[in-house]
Amino acid sequence: MQSSTGIIWYCLNEFFWNTGKHSSVSIQQEIHELGRRARAAAHVLSRLETKEKNRILSAMADAIDARRASIQDANHLDLAAGRAAGLTPALLDRLELTGARVQAMSDGLRVIVELPDPVGEVLRQWTRPIGIAIEKIRVPIGVIGIIYESRPNVTADGAALCFKTSNAVILRGGKEAVHSNRAIADTLRDAGREAGCPEDAIQLVQSTDREGVRHLVQMTEFVDIIIPRGGEGLIRAVAEQAHVPVIKHYKGVCHTYVDADADLEMAMSICENAKVQRPGVCNAMETMLVHTAVAPAFLPEMAGRLQSQGVELRGDAEARRLVPGIKEATDADWEEEYLDLILAVRIVPDLDAAIDHINTFGSHHSDAIVTESAGAQAAFTQRIDSAAVYVNASTRFTDGAEFGMGAEIGISTDKLHARGPVGLEELTTYKYVILGNGQIKE
Amino acid sequence: MQSSTGIIWYCLNEFFWNTGKHSSVSIQQEIHELGRRARAAAHVLSRLETKEKNRILSAMADAIDARRASIQDANHLDLAAGRAAGLTPALLDRLELTGARVQAMSDGLRVIVELPDPVGEVLRQWTRPIGIAIEKIRVPIGVIGIIYESRPNVTADGAALCFKTSNAVILRGGKEAVHSNRAIADTLRDAGREAGCPEDAIQLVQSTDREGVRHLVQMTEFVDIIIPRGGEGLIRAVAEQAHVPVIKHYKGVCHTYVDADADLEMAMSICENAKVQRPGVCNAMETMLVHTAVAPAFLPEMAGRLQSQGVELRGDAEARRLVPGIKEATDADWEEEYLDLILAVRIVPDLDAAIDHINTFGSHHSDAIVTESAGAQAAFTQRIDSAAVYVNASTRFTDGAEFGMGAEIGISTDKLHARGPVGLEELTTYKYVILGNGQIKE
Repeated sequence: MQSSTGIIWYCLNEFFWNTGKHSSVSIQQEIHELGRRARAAAHVLSRLETKEKNRILSAMADAIDARRASIQDANHLDLAAGRAAGLTPALLDRLELTGARVQAMSDGLRVIVELPDPVGEVLRQWTRPIGIAIEKIRVPIGVIGIIYESRPNVTADGAALCFKTSNAVILRGGKEAVHSNRAIADTLRDAGREAGCPEDAIQLVQSTDREGVRHLVQMTEFVDIIIPRGGEGLIRAVAEQAHVPVIKHYKGVCHTYVDADADLEMAMSICENAKVQRPGVCNAMETMLVHTAVAPAFLPEMAGRLQSQGVELRGDAEARRLVPGIKEATDADWEEEYLDLILAVRIVPDLDAAIDHINTFGSHHSDAIVTESAGAQAAFTQRIDSAAVYVNASTRFTDGAEFGMGAEIGISTDKLHARGPVGLEELTTYKYVILGNGQIKE
Repeated sequence: MQSSTGIIWYCLNEFFWNTGKHSSVSIQQEIHELGRRARAAAHVLSRLETKEKNRILSAMADAIDARRASIQDANHLDLAAGRAAGLTPALLDRLELTGARVQAMSDGLRVIVELPDPVGEVLRQWTRPIGIAIEKIRVPIGVIGIIYESRPNVTADGAALCFKTSNAVILRGGKEAVHSNRAIADTLRDAGREAGCPEDAIQLVQSTDREGVRHLVQMTEFVDIIIPRGGEGLIRAVAEQAHVPVIKHYKGVCHTYVDADADLEMAMSICENAKVQRPGVCNAMETMLVHTAVAPAFLPEMAGRLQSQGVELRGDAEARRLVPGIKEATDADWEEEYLDLILAVRIVPDLDAAIDHINTFGSHHSDAIVTESAGAQAAFTQRIDSAAVYVNASTRFTDGAEFGMGAEIGISTDKLHARGPVGLEELTTYKYVILGNGQIKE
């Protein structure tokens, strides 16, 4: 039953939301109207006090709990449609909203209530000789567009992070989660409205046509930034079409370099953790670099520990001499984000070669050195051009919660505005407020 | 003689540098090679100490003084070509390098030597319960592309600001200043090389073909940000083609709002200054909003003062009733950056209407309120969505030097990364350095 209902829903969905070019005018109108409303809501949001915002967020969290059953019903429609369309078990798992996951969504909102509100913080203040007092103040960015795939919890997380920072949000989820996303967004909007939240602080793009994404990311008059979340394909497509600035990371090709002066037992523990503890995430290690002087003492034992946990190694010539039988690493391996139990291994002659390799082939996300040498630590942290540079710790710590920033909306490998975890502070900008008493420029 | 030499140079220049699509492969190769070299230089620059950088910048300043005559000779070629091509006197003036202007360039470099180096500053540091110590450190952005028109002094200013912040720079000046820019860039490069500066820290695009700009702004692997400087047309063209992030401002449509509770004498002095003192710059006032309650006491006298200094007023119906004979303002006037002795005037019923007008028609650059009311001051500074919001002072102060930031490379009306004056700090990003002693993620 569920399955056939799912198919019918899926077909209706395809029919209504993927009608191609014929509907592009109306899709453009829909997106334009969302933008206009978001901008108006942002102006109202910028006047809300922190206390007000927290009260509304709490009401939203309660509403998610209260409507858990209907959110799960909507999710069942998506799951049935996904099964009918042949989604992989991994994708179906990402899509599923179990009772515990709905609870995690409302708990996530309550965590955001407890976090400090960055808006209004005075970042700096000073007075100029002519007598004008200048304050540099943290303010909301304005309107944020979030474009994401499958996981429906992003609907709640993204909306709450933007709301806490007084930004209006336009959410555009994937076609496969359309019912779940609508149920969650409706819950947040209804609860917000009842609690006195500005209309249209949170909006969901109803159309799942790709034309809508293009209009959204090019609508510079109404949208201030776009945050894409999903696979590299989605992110590249958004970045290439966008006229609005994009905060993003394409991928995490993270390295651990085991230096000549490494504590080898520490290096084994760190490398094992960085590769094995959760291989499918962006801060997991993808390439291990080993100084040639310690390679004989380190690599064979390390390889054994990794292989015993199912890791496939791909090595350069020297690594394959030390660990016979492993696959050969090609140039493509140095740039690959496996997101899996696979590890590229390269033996390097010195620290400079390790730094060059990481800056050349890495993705500027998170990279670690294991060494007891103060000189090597200093050179590595200064010269590695990545968002997070580690000394004697696992790259797996690059995460808003682990850094103590509370919730995050992603990790940026961009260099402008936000680098590394994107939390509440990174969803703000600043303005200068200048107080005078009649000063004019000579 | 000079003039005919100029024509010959101009024709040669057109021939060599504007050969259109046939040369697009070689232009792409040129730009790619500049990018590759800039990235390599950036890695070396990131290791230079402040003392070293200042020594090299001083040598560059001395070299500009020493080569003043040959820089002026090159400039004469550009001026002659410009005259032959019929450039306006205003453009020729922007292009001309008088002795005093060459001196101002070298003096500008010496000012940058004296400014504090933001690179390496620890923005925040903290320790997490698991024992990892996190530092958020200011670092160079990497490679900066600057695309600019006419004024050749940008070649020296831009290069020096980037060098002081350990960024490699790729400069792409306008065709009309090609000889001046080459002479200045060669001077800086030669002096830098002799003083031990990394090769290719400063590079000038030799081709002035537009294809080169397109390659430069799309070369994400080698260029981290693009800063366009020039007219709105140039900036829009760059922003639309760019895949690399752009820091920009399109225009400054700045407002002064004279509130019901204004000190009217102060308001007249501020408005006069904001409009008349230097009308051709981005922080000059373009629209004056006047509360209806004070309009009869304020506007006729203000209009007289402005008109006596040659200002043309364009008013809404109520303004024209109070100041008979002035032109009618159309909707287009509210969005116009006159950069001239022209002022749009609108009478508004209240503070809300003034805020709405500014947020709707303004360019989010610099906007002022004149009022003695604390409530109106607070509402205006909170709700106006601009880089600089003034109370009882002229908008003309939005400027890196006036803010006490030293030199600036422009004013950003973007909200991401840099808003307002773009000085040395704004040419940096940050990274997280994490120091552990073997921590792994549980």
